[in-house]
This record gives sequence, C-alpha cells and structure tokens, in this order.
Amino acid sequence: MSAARDDDPVFAMHRGGKLEMRSTVRLRGPDDLSMAYTPGVARVCSAIAADPALAADYTWAARAVAVVTDGSAVLGLGDIGPLAALPVMEGKAALFKEFGGVDAVPICLDTQDVDRIVDTVVALAPSFGGINLEDISAPRCFAVEDRLTALLDIPVMHDDQHGTAIVVLAALRNAARLTGRELGDLRVVVSGAGAAGVAVTRILLGAGIGDIAVADSRGILHAGRPDLTDVKAGLARDTNAAGLDGSLAAALAGADVFIGVSAGRVPEAAVASMATDCFVFAMANPEPEVDPEVAARYARVVATGRSDFPNQINNVLAFPGIFRGALDAGARRITEGMKLAAASALADVVGDELRPDLIVPSPFDPRVAPAVAAAVSGAARAEGVTRR
Amino acid sequence: MSAARDDDPVFAMHRGGKLEMRSTVRLRGPDDLSMAYTPGVARVCSAIAADPALAADYTWAARAVAVVTDGSAVLGLGDIGPLAALPVMEGKAALFKEFGGVDAVPICLDTQDVDRIVDTVVALAPSFGGINLEDISAPRCFAVEDRLTALLDIPVMHDDQHGTAIVVLAALRNAARLTGRELGDLRVVVSGAGAAGVAVTRILLGAGIGDIAVADSRGILHAGRPDLTDVKAGLARDTNAAGLDGSLAAALAGADVFIGVSAGRVPEAAVASMATDCFVFAMANPEPEVDPEVAARYARVVATGRSDFPNQINNVLAFPGIFRGALDAGARRITEGMKLAAASALADVVGDELRPDLIVPSPFDPRVAPAVAAAVSGAARAEGVTRR
Repeated sequence: MSAARDDDPVFAMHRGGKLEMRSTVRLRGPDDLSMAYTPGVARVCSAIAADPALAADYTWAARAVAVVTDGSAVLGLGDIGPLAALPVMEGKAALFKEFGGVDAVPICLDTQDVDRIVDTVVALAPSFGGINLEDISAPRCFAVEDRLTALLDIPVMHDDQHGTAIVVLAALRNAARLTGRELGDLRVVVSGAGAAGVAVTRILLGAGIGDIAVADSRGILHAGRPDLTDVKAGLARDTNAAGLDGSLAAALAGADVFIGVSAGRVPEAAVASMATDCFVFAMANPEPEVDPEVAARYARVVATGRSDFPNQINNVLAFPGIFRGALDAGARRITEGMKLAAASALADVVGDELRPDLIVPSPFDPRVAPAVAAAVSGAARAEGVTRR
Repeated sequence: MSAARDDDPVFAMHRGGKLEMRSTVRLRGPDDLSMAYTPGVARVCSAIAADPALAADYTWAARAVAVVTDGSAVLGLGDIGPLAALPVMEGKAALFKEFGGVDAVPICLDTQDVDRIVDTVVALAPSFGGINLEDISAPRCFAVEDRLTALLDIPVMHDDQHGTAIVVLAALRNAARLTGRELGDLRVVVSGAGAAGVAVTRILLGAGIGDIAVADSRGILHAGRPDLTDVKAGLARDTNAAGLDGSLAAALAGADVFIGVSAGRVPEAAVASMATDCFVFAMANPEPEVDPEVAARYARVVATGRSDFPNQINNVLAFPGIFRGALDAGARRITEGMKLAAASALADVVGDELRPDLIVPSPFDPRVAPAVAAAVSGAARAEGVTRR
C-alpha cells in the first residue's frame, strides 16, 4: 500500500494538501503591522460594528465560501467520514478558485446529525459569504439545505443537487435545440431519487418539462407506493401524470430522455425501446448506467459523468460561476430563477459549436464561469434578492 | 464617516479583506483535474479512510489552524460581535502565514454561549490541525479552552491568555538576566485578573516565581474575598502568600515587578514605592497603566504593549512559532512545558544584544519564529504528546 502510494502521481500531487492561505497585504515592517493589525485595524472593526454592511467592503467574507461536508456520501465511496472527505473538499476549493476566483475553505464536520450540522453552519456563517454543501447523503441533505436557507441570509447550495441539475438542464436544452425540439415536448425518465435525482427532476419541472417519470431502486415513483420518504412522495405527486407503475425499463418505452443519477445498470433492450432521436445521459461514476457505446446505437445524444467520453456532465461547469455571481451581486439566497438562468447561460456558451458530441462546453472554456456568473447575478438583481 | 474612510490608508489596505485561498496544485487541463479531483482523489480518500494518520501527509489539515472568536472581547473594543471582529481575525491569519508559515482560517462565531462555541469547534475540528482561540472574554474563555483541550486531540490555545503570558515570561527572564537576578527572587504584582492576567500569573508560577500578588479592579485577590469567580478564587489560593489585602497600590510597595494587563491607571506614587531596579510592564492598549516616561523615572526596565515604545510585549513574537512547532511535531495539545520552552527560546533570541530597551526581539527578527517553533516541537516530543 505504502509502496503503491510512493509510485502514484496522484498521491504525490496530494502530498501536504492542495491549499494554502495567503495574505493579500504587505507585512514587512512595523508600519504595515500597525495598519493591518493593531492599532489600525480597530478603526475598521469599529466601522463595521457601527454599519455591518461595511463587512462586504472591508473583509474577505464577501468573497469566501465554506465547502461543508459531513463525509456521508463522498464521491462513489459513500460514508467515509469527515477526515477522508477532506481531499475532495480541498479539490473543490481549488476548483472554486481556479474557475471562479472564489476563496473557498473546506469544513469537514465531525457529525452527521442534521440538527448539529445546521447549528454548526449557522454558528460559523458570519465569516463566510456563502455555504456550499457537499457530499451529504439523502434524505438528510434536503433538510440541511432547507433549514440553512431559511436561517441564513447568504447563499446556501448543496452542489450534488443543484450543480448537477443545472448542468443537466443546460445539456438538455442544447440536445433539444440540436434536434429541433422544445423542452416541453420531451418525455423524460430520471433514474435515481437521491440528492441529484430530486434536484434534476425539480429543475426540469421548473423549466417547463411536464412529462417526467422518476424511478428509484424499487421502480417508478407513484402516489400509491407506501414506501416513500416525504421528499419522494412529493416527487411522486409532481411527476408521473400517466400513473406508470413498475420498473425503470417499463418507463423507458417510448421515452425521449434517460437521465441516470444512480448506480443501477439499464438493459440494452430498455434503451432500444426509447423513442427515435432519444438522449441518454448516463452519469453514474465510474460505471455509467448505460455503456456509452451501447447507448450510441440508439440515442442521438449521449452524455456521461466521465471525462474520457464526450459531453461530460461536470458540476465544475456550474458551481464556480454560480457562487461567483451570487457573491458579486450580494445575493441573500440562490433562487430557482438564478439556477434556471445559470443553465441557460451555460447552454448558450456552446453557441454555434453545437454538435451531438458537444452539448456542454469544456470545463476549461474560459467563457463558462463569467457567463454563468453574469446570468446568476443578473437574475439575483432582477428578483431583488440582493443585499445591496 | 465615508469621506474619512476614503482618505484613510488603513481602510484602503483592508478593502476586499486581507486573505485569499490559493491552490497549491496545477489545474490547467483534464489530466490535472482527474488527479486533483475525481476520479483520482478517490484513491487518496480511500487511503485516509483506511488509515486516518495519512491525513497528516495528504491533506492541509496538518498545516491549517482555525482562528476562532465569538467577538466578545476584541482588542480594546470589547463585545463588538463576530462580523466586526473579522478584520482582526484576518489580520491574525495574515500574521500566522507571514511569521510562521501557518495557514490560518478566520472563524467568527455567531454565538457567545460556551456550550455552542465548544460544540461548534468540536464539529469543525477534523479539517484543522490546531485551534487558536482569540478575543473571547473572561471568564468564558477559560471554560471554552479547558473543554476544547479535553475534547480534541489537536493543539488548542487561547492566544490572549498564553501568547501574552509566554512573551511576558520571556521579557521577565531577560530583565532578570540584565540585572543579575533569579526569577525566583522577584516579588511580582499583576494588575488584571482577566484572560491575560490569569495566564501570566499561571506561567510565572510555573517558572518558579513564588511571590506574586494579583489585583483586579476591586483590589488584591485573597482567600477572604467573597466576590471571586472560581478562576479568581483559584488564583487567590495560589498567590499572595503574604495575605495582602487592599488596593493595587498597597501591593506595589517594595515590589520588583509590575505587570499591567488591565485598563486601570497606576498613580506615580505607587510606582515610586516599588523596589530599586524594578521592572514596569504596562501593557494596556492604547493607554499603558503607567506612562512610559513616568515609569522610566523609577524602573530599570520599562515595557509596554505599544509599537511606538521600546520593549513591545507583542503576541506575534509567540503564536506563529508556537503553532508552527506544535504542527511540525504533530502535537496533540499545548502543554505547560511547551509554553515554558517557547518563552525561554524567545528570550534567548536576544542573546548578547540584551539592553534595558531590548529585552524582547523585534517581531521582524527572522530568528524568532524558527527558534520558538524548534523549542515547542522539541518539548512536545520530549513530553511524548506527539501523534507521530
């Protein structure tokens, strides 16, 4: 194990961690010290005490985001705890800075109790301008996000839900445009009713897609199922107008879109039963629900969560720009309108380059984060949810 | 007010805050992303899940310190709350990096309840290698530090207590050496029984000074006083062997050392009543308890908390090196022995340059933090309180 680590460039890259804190002010002599620290800093503190809005100008809080996890649903690894989750949160913070210019701090919590998570984040919130929740398992993630959004006056977003949902919607917009269809004409099947599945379904409903069926590991959600959590029961009410019952495969017959955010495999026959010019977004990692080569036999557009296939549905296309835009606008929260605006802006970056294997831009396309940020801050201002 | 701010170079320096987070790894293309983030990072996470000790090698936790405040006792400003305290915590984090190479994150808490402070810091501790408590008012600061030290397996230190105490002891060591006296021969009066006064008294007792009287705003602490908190009653038991009663001025008659960590003024007559070759450390800010020019009429050595007089008792001489040394050694806590070692090492930096107006080094002396760090890590290893 140790020898394997020594030879592994991934471990070499992670040695010592992936972040550092830097001072943006010069501290070379007593004069610098007396301005950046005592006694000079007392004037800045007094000004903020008299007018808290000045904190946005004279502290880093307006630029800083806490990346908060309880380590309960880390990547595909599951419940590995806060310490083992830290390399992911450091990576997330590194991506925040690289792609969005957002200063992000990993905060890995030694609790998986919803009340304690909420209490802790509320307590530490004054030093941050936003809270990115990460890798918290369903259904606790829904309660954590809802309660923090209600309690705090800064943007709170669970990226596993909404980052994924925003990129899926952007990809679907472009796939529809490519095939000359309206979103509202699509029949969509979502496989997975965890954090991502719920948020994807909600944003698609918000974007005007009326015909959605959601399946969890026990089959299609419908109002008659007695085994549903509150969140799933809500989804069952708002989807599956046709009253479908049975397996995921049953739902796929004639469907226009498959969106996989689960771990289950989909049989080729079920993919073959989908409508002509269908789209398969098989985003499970590392094994997509449908092998991309198999999917390509039946689908007009294929997307996955993997970087080694075209059309990677990658959250990094969304979260840096979303928080950059929300912070820039001084947004008090992240609304559905801001998420829809982010998805549209992300889709529009592709523009004339749109092809079946290019429905989302590359994460390294420098236009992505500025476009998303501008759309998000514009929507925040238009909705009047900004602080200034 | 706004116009005054626009013309004030201190406000200009603080604009946008004083910190930024940086990635230490390159993120220029898909290969970098697949190593720093998914899928590569999963290997690092799995390794830490299997062996948590690896977090010290492959995360920033072993380098990162949380600077935690509740905003209840900020500088001389008092209870200005967490948001207005943030500029100080950012400055502290900047000093941590500049002087100790320690990556420090300001965490300003929206609570002043001891239980909630403790619960919050315990919850967020996995992502940090140490906790620097800052500007928390007495007596709550004692309970917060004691409980966190008991609950956490990483160094916890309230700098207003121990940073100050360590620098005072270093200064006193050198003042004694300058005048050819032993610490144990000194009669010391401490004015102030708050965070700093308690810790200063405790470290001086630990360094072998037996004759100490402590005064709070109501006079000398003694066992017969009915108005004492638990912490002050403990100090009364361990000090004032002579059973003095009455005012601070009464205690100063014939004393060798005055240590002021309060806001009260000391009359010149009381200073005049001190012993020959006495030392006056008048550290209240911005107004020292004794005017330095007045003190110089009677004292052989005068120190203050101000940067514009010689012998500044400045915590920055201690905390960067203390945490640097504790982190380097993988210390589980900060012991009395580590504090005493830090004070001795800090005193020794002055060496042959010792003069009445140079009993502590300059904060900008590059030898300070490495000397303190080496002493602290050495003491930690000698005491066997290290993780590795």
